[in-house]
Amino acid sequence: MRCKSCESRFQDYYADTCKQCHEHNKAKVAFLGATQPASFSDVVLFASEDEAAGPVPAHKAVLVSRSPVFRAMFENEMEESLSGTIKIGEVSYRTLGAFVNYLYTAEVRLDQQFACDLFVMAEKYQVHHLKDYCQNFLVANLNWDNSLSTYTLAHRHNAKQIIDAALTVITDNMDKLTSRKEYAKLKEKDPQLVFEIYEVFLSRHSSFSCVRTVSSDDCDYW
Amino acid sequence: MRCKSCESRFQDYYADTCKQCHEHNKAKVAFLGATQPASFSDVVLFASEDEAAGPVPAHKAVLVSRSPVFRAMFENEMEESLSGTIKIGEVSYRTLGAFVNYLYTAEVRLDQQFACDLFVMAEKYQVHHLKDYCQNFLVANLNWDNSLSTYTLAHRHNAKQIIDAALTVITDNMDKLTSRKEYAKLKEKDPQLVFEIYEVFLSRHSSFSCVRTVSSDDCDYW
Repeated sequence: MRCKSCESRFQDYYADTCKQCHEHNKAKVAFLGATQPASFSDVVLFASEDEAAGPVPAHKAVLVSRSPVFRAMFENEMEESLSGTIKIGEVSYRTLGAFVNYLYTAEVRLDQQFACDLFVMAEKYQVHHLKDYCQNFLVANLNWDNSLSTYTLAHRHNAKQIIDAALTVITDNMDKLTSRKEYAKLKEKDPQLVFEIYEVFLSRHSSFSCVRTVSSDDCDYW
Repeated sequence: MRCKSCESRFQDYYADTCKQCHEHNKAKVAFLGATQPASFSDVVLFASEDEAAGPVPAHKAVLVSRSPVFRAMFENEMEESLSGTIKIGEVSYRTLGAFVNYLYTAEVRLDQQFACDLFVMAEKYQVHHLKDYCQNFLVANLNWDNSLSTYTLAHRHNAKQIIDAALTVITDNMDKLTSRKEYAKLKEKDPQLVFEIYEVFLSRHSSFSCVRTVSSDDCDYW
């Protein structure tokens, strides 16, 4: 069978929903995701990196229901809440627009860079639904080329699932590690992360280390 | 297999979604349905039958995205839009509250009366998603006791699917029809609907009428 959502093949025991309920759920998502951020908005957001690009309109009610950070901001009547204008730091207009749009529709088309940027936004505003979505994308799209940068990003945001997946890719390619530019930078900027790579590599190759131990001179108790 | 949404059993060929996508869809519905009508609302609705029960708060942005009737009302800056107070005719406070809540969550627990009341509201405000939901409930819960009232309601709102289903129940019980109180009322109030019942009964029993024709005297060309 082929799943109508992700189009991947699945076995009977991976099926969970009948056709009717699937259509019903899809219609619910479309129904609930129809609110337009610009329609009768009561707040505007600006991207600090791109202020000239203009405002991203939204609704306080939607922002507080999706993010506990926005909830605290508006319910405590902080300055931003009263003025109806919020400046969002360290974000581009494109990312901010996609972030707000996701809060309304739960939809976004990701690429690697976008997934990283939105992951950071989702972490900052504690939008777990988006954070999980980006996390799944980043794990599924891990490869040798992006593994070190993804590993560094994941560490900055304590994303264990991504860290573990990135470490697997990195330690599977240890012979190429030291020739990477990012490796040199990481040693300088965050040596703890490099130590972790070596320690994980060693622990995952304990049998290899054991073989060497057995053959070494100080193993004469064997 | 048992569907995780409706809990009914289904065969392989009725499965459409893998477990992962089902969970993903469910999470989307929960994420999008989290907006609270009372949070930073910019409009209040009153039920004309129950005005003392108080206001039902909402957001113009949500109402216009779910209902083209509300869209016309607010976008054309009709009186209600400017005042931020809308009086909703011929509805109880309970039904209005459930209607508004459905616009935010796509969820409601129906019983027969509630399904009828919300069907009327959904028709009036052209909320097709809710109309379909009530329609499916009314068809699934049709029985001899509610068939005449459901048939009458469906006719008032031109709901062909319900009309057809109700006619099936009614014409399957023609021997009991004339003893029903609603039958006498319907003859008086809307005779066209009674004619339709008889005409459908005749058309569905055309073979029976044919047998009688064959045995009658004027069929001597046989």
